[in-house]
Amino acid sequence: MPTPKQARSLEHPTREQISLEGVLHALSDPMRLMVVRALAEEGVADQSCSVFDLPVSKSTTTHHFRVLRESGVIHQIYRGTAKLNSLRRDDLEALFPGLLDSVLTAYDRQSERAPAAG
Amino acid sequence: MPTPKQARSLEHPTREQISLEGVLHALSDPMRLMVVRALAEEGVADQSCSVFDLPVSKSTTTHHFRVLRESGVIHQIYRGTAKLNSLRRDDLEALFPGLLDSVLTAYDRQSERAPAAG
Repeated sequence: MPTPKQARSLEHPTREQISLEGVLHALSDPMRLMVVRALAEEGVADQSCSVFDLPVSKSTTTHHFRVLRESGVIHQIYRGTAKLNSLRRDDLEALFPGLLDSVLTAYDRQSERAPAAG
Repeated sequence: MPTPKQARSLEHPTREQISLEGVLHALSDPMRLMVVRALAEEGVADQSCSVFDLPVSKSTTTHHFRVLRESGVIHQIYRGTAKLNSLRRDDLEALFPGLLDSVLTAYDRQSERAPAAG
């Protein structure tokens, strides 16, 4: 069977390299929180960056996804020219139990508090 | 009874003005996490900044405390020329239930994982 044409790979921190400070920094931005919230939906996996219609430029979008990847919050793989994204839920849960869920809960509460914010 | 000489006061966000993004940003720094961890100890209240012997300059220390105050994580009052600090635990808990505790738990776990980090 031929190997899929998927040569380029992106650097990710190992589980051990993921720091709490880096994760909190990655989550401290409204656009990145929005992406993480969407990736956390049940059944969602391997979403292309272009699926997220963030109200920022393409290069800013790329930057946000890079911050999420480099902090260990998401995993990105190339599929052709697109990058597919998924949440590193298992790694985060193993390192910082309950943290992701409490951030997502807080995000939802804040969204209810000020639905038109932004 | 004479009013205590405590004229200067510091600006704080109201509970409603506290944002999740601001809180996560404030907590995304090792020095600030260290301060919050110390202020979260049971029975600890109104600690002077100088109590925290952070391995950074005085002005950097002042900066870190300002970020914590402006994000709504801590409350600061002047006592003479010193600033006394306390955690806004009730406000944070009301806005984002469980968040502070999950961050502190994550911080403790990370400290155990790499006790000599820094």
